[in-house]
Amino acid sequence: MSLIADTPEPPYYAVIFSSHVTGDTEGYAETAARMLELAAEQPGYLGVESVREDLGVTVSYWADLESIRLWKQQAEHRLAQKSGREKWYSSYRIRIARVERDYENRA
Amino acid sequence: MSLIADTPEPPYYAVIFSSHVTGDTEGYAETAARMLELAAEQPGYLGVESVREDLGVTVSYWADLESIRLWKQQAEHRLAQKSGREKWYSSYRIRIARVERDYENRA
Repeated sequence: MSLIADTPEPPYYAVIFSSHVTGDTEGYAETAARMLELAAEQPGYLGVESVREDLGVTVSYWADLESIRLWKQQAEHRLAQKSGREKWYSSYRIRIARVERDYENRA
Repeated sequence: MSLIADTPEPPYYAVIFSSHVTGDTEGYAETAARMLELAAEQPGYLGVESVREDLGVTVSYWADLESIRLWKQQAEHRLAQKSGREKWYSSYRIRIARVERDYENRA
């Protein structure tokens, strides 16, 4: 199974979320998994790619900026963001980007 | 040390490289490390974030599309791309995106 998101033809949007977690990761894994599940139910969701070593990078793909705005405001997601800021993340950076081109290779 | 790239104010560009590797990873780790080193020497390079589990996601940041084009054409990088296609990657996808906004939180 490929974990590479099967996104449509550009243009579309990517939210690149890069983070470091603190030592206090109680509840983190469950919430992170729940957020991936919940994101997939949102309007305009196109896919996600998520990887963590020391650094975590989660790229979610969206049809447009309005979909990203709505997801950011989603109630359960807001609670998770609050826990993230207060407990789980020592630092993070979020970048909103417009995907203009993509190409792939499947062996 | 933060592994989150210290990029300047947007706009700038991101190359999101998502991949799965095959069982044949001879030479892969050395070449991947060398490419991160080499990318950092290119004009217009702004930073990189790279993580691998089953899925690998490497996001490199660039000042403009011309810098990305030159990096893609760089001779040693082209050889690495060829090995990647022929040996190391079972599948990959590359997305070129214009970063329009970013925000961060440092604890």
